[in-house]
Amino acid sequence: MSKMSSLVSSLILAGSVSVASAWEALPNKAPEPANNPTTPEKVKLGQILYHDPRLSSTGTVSCASCHNTMLGGEDNRPNSMGVNGQTGGRSAPTVWNSAFNEVQFWDGRAASLEDQAAGPVTNPIEMGMKSWDDVVARLKSIEGYQALFEKAFGKDSISKDNATKAIAAYERTLITPNSPYDKYVKGNKNAMTEQQVRGMEKFAEIGCGGCHSGAAFNGPGMFQKFPVFSNGFFNAKYKFVKDKGRAEVTKKESDKNFWKVPTLRNIAITAPYFHNGSVKTLDEAVKIMAKMQLDKDLSKDEIADIVAFLNALTGEFPKQQMPALPATPGTTVN
Amino acid sequence: MSKMSSLVSSLILAGSVSVASAWEALPNKAPEPANNPTTPEKVKLGQILYHDPRLSSTGTVSCASCHNTMLGGEDNRPNSMGVNGQTGGRSAPTVWNSAFNEVQFWDGRAASLEDQAAGPVTNPIEMGMKSWDDVVARLKSIEGYQALFEKAFGKDSISKDNATKAIAAYERTLITPNSPYDKYVKGNKNAMTEQQVRGMEKFAEIGCGGCHSGAAFNGPGMFQKFPVFSNGFFNAKYKFVKDKGRAEVTKKESDKNFWKVPTLRNIAITAPYFHNGSVKTLDEAVKIMAKMQLDKDLSKDEIADIVAFLNALTGEFPKQQMPALPATPGTTVN
Repeated sequence: MSKMSSLVSSLILAGSVSVASAWEALPNKAPEPANNPTTPEKVKLGQILYHDPRLSSTGTVSCASCHNTMLGGEDNRPNSMGVNGQTGGRSAPTVWNSAFNEVQFWDGRAASLEDQAAGPVTNPIEMGMKSWDDVVARLKSIEGYQALFEKAFGKDSISKDNATKAIAAYERTLITPNSPYDKYVKGNKNAMTEQQVRGMEKFAEIGCGGCHSGAAFNGPGMFQKFPVFSNGFFNAKYKFVKDKGRAEVTKKESDKNFWKVPTLRNIAITAPYFHNGSVKTLDEAVKIMAKMQLDKDLSKDEIADIVAFLNALTGEFPKQQMPALPATPGTTVN
Repeated sequence: MSKMSSLVSSLILAGSVSVASAWEALPNKAPEPANNPTTPEKVKLGQILYHDPRLSSTGTVSCASCHNTMLGGEDNRPNSMGVNGQTGGRSAPTVWNSAFNEVQFWDGRAASLEDQAAGPVTNPIEMGMKSWDDVVARLKSIEGYQALFEKAFGKDSISKDNATKAIAAYERTLITPNSPYDKYVKGNKNAMTEQQVRGMEKFAEIGCGGCHSGAAFNGPGMFQKFPVFSNGFFNAKYKFVKDKGRAEVTKKESDKNFWKVPTLRNIAITAPYFHNGSVKTLDEAVKIMAKMQLDKDLSKDEIADIVAFLNALTGEFPKQQMPALPATPGTTVN
């Protein structure tokens, strides 16, 4: 979806909840780039790589450690813990439905899932590998990976490019459709409770959909300032403006405190909230968003209704077989 | 199996490889204690608890972090990494087939899988929870656990006792039968290579089976001194005697450097070796064991043969569905 069409649908959303066509159900399939079509062999390899802690310097941290596929796709921590107990300043975004983000990371610094997958592996406080050459060397030392890469990409194909392609292909399968909201917008009017429908209407009425638009409620491709309206109390309590967000990447003052609009899919199970994971409950997060983005003071009932609606965005998680990681015979990670 | 019968079969093993009845295939089912019969509901709950990092203080370390069910049941590290990057002095034993150990931990300080499961959770350098009361409080705060415990143990049943029973019930399903060795001793003489058969004969001939007896090659219930024969070179290099082993528990001088005999099942994929994980390759481990336990100098060919045989002990790993951990709505682990 282009920024323009996203904006149009947002305006429609903001206008009236009765424009049913503006509410989109989550597709069952994610878009895939021309240079990395999804294949079962890539997905299988990607699932294995994603769950393999040997992609980290200590052999203890896999992609799944912080983006846990057994949970809501993240770690329920304010910030994640990488190798040797190190922590960073940002909260792990969920991997579920990340295929519907047009850019990745909180600051949107990766243009694709493939680009994103390359980052944490060599980040010194995340997975801590010195270089992708070291990662490739380690993968080559694990016999089983030769065959897995060969099936997915052809002979002698272990490389950074193919590893990240496989991980991205796997991530494109991590979609959670059939939430109560999806069933509701597809026509099952009993799929949401009355309170959830009230919350949905309030969500549109006050303008949440101005940014949280589209099937994944992530205003695909959209960056937004947070907070828009300064608030001394919340700022002091949660230190939202300390991290400059997108400006850390672009070095432009105009990007200060701008962030990729995060998905609201499964938001009820991915506490804590915001880029710094400083807010523990969804009630508080909704209150803050209304006040700091829309300059609105919501009543307790209105907050409860919107939270009820957000709970209707929790989807069905696909059943996965636990991957069997290829063994490391006769050697160790450190 | 009692210590006596274990001893008898060991003596038979040591005598001649032709006594086929002394070679036992791995049972498909583990023995279970009278007070914790295995049920599907317990196994399901146990699998979830086993993989839930919220059983640790930081929310980052689960049982599976160090005893990885996607790998050889451990972490391929000399010692494991617990919360906040802390490490201990011993190497994580494999969880696969641990149901066939009569005692647990390297020093045998836990008499059952249930007892074992309680330990790491509150160990400050492993999972770091302050107390089991805290663990139970956290489990109670996660709504989905109420229903899971109710199905397994009845209403309002979240407790340390039941959590560890569920984990133990799950662990009793982690069995890897049908290794080439198992097929061979069941009559398929093509299941092992000639070299593996030579290695098997050498294994028996030099007396490895004196301790590594029984279906799991763990001399069930048996403690043994390691090293028996001191060796200045190996001791200096690998510091085997620094850790007093069982004497750390019993405080008896006679237990100094005594250890539970570990299983050899899947040993080829659980490097590094020994209680301190100081030896990286199986070749070196076999050389050391022959020299320091049996005072034998093996030739390179003999070592290669025994290593080939040990590779025949890698079994079939049961396919598991990835557990969906109950969500933590509106709250966080720290």
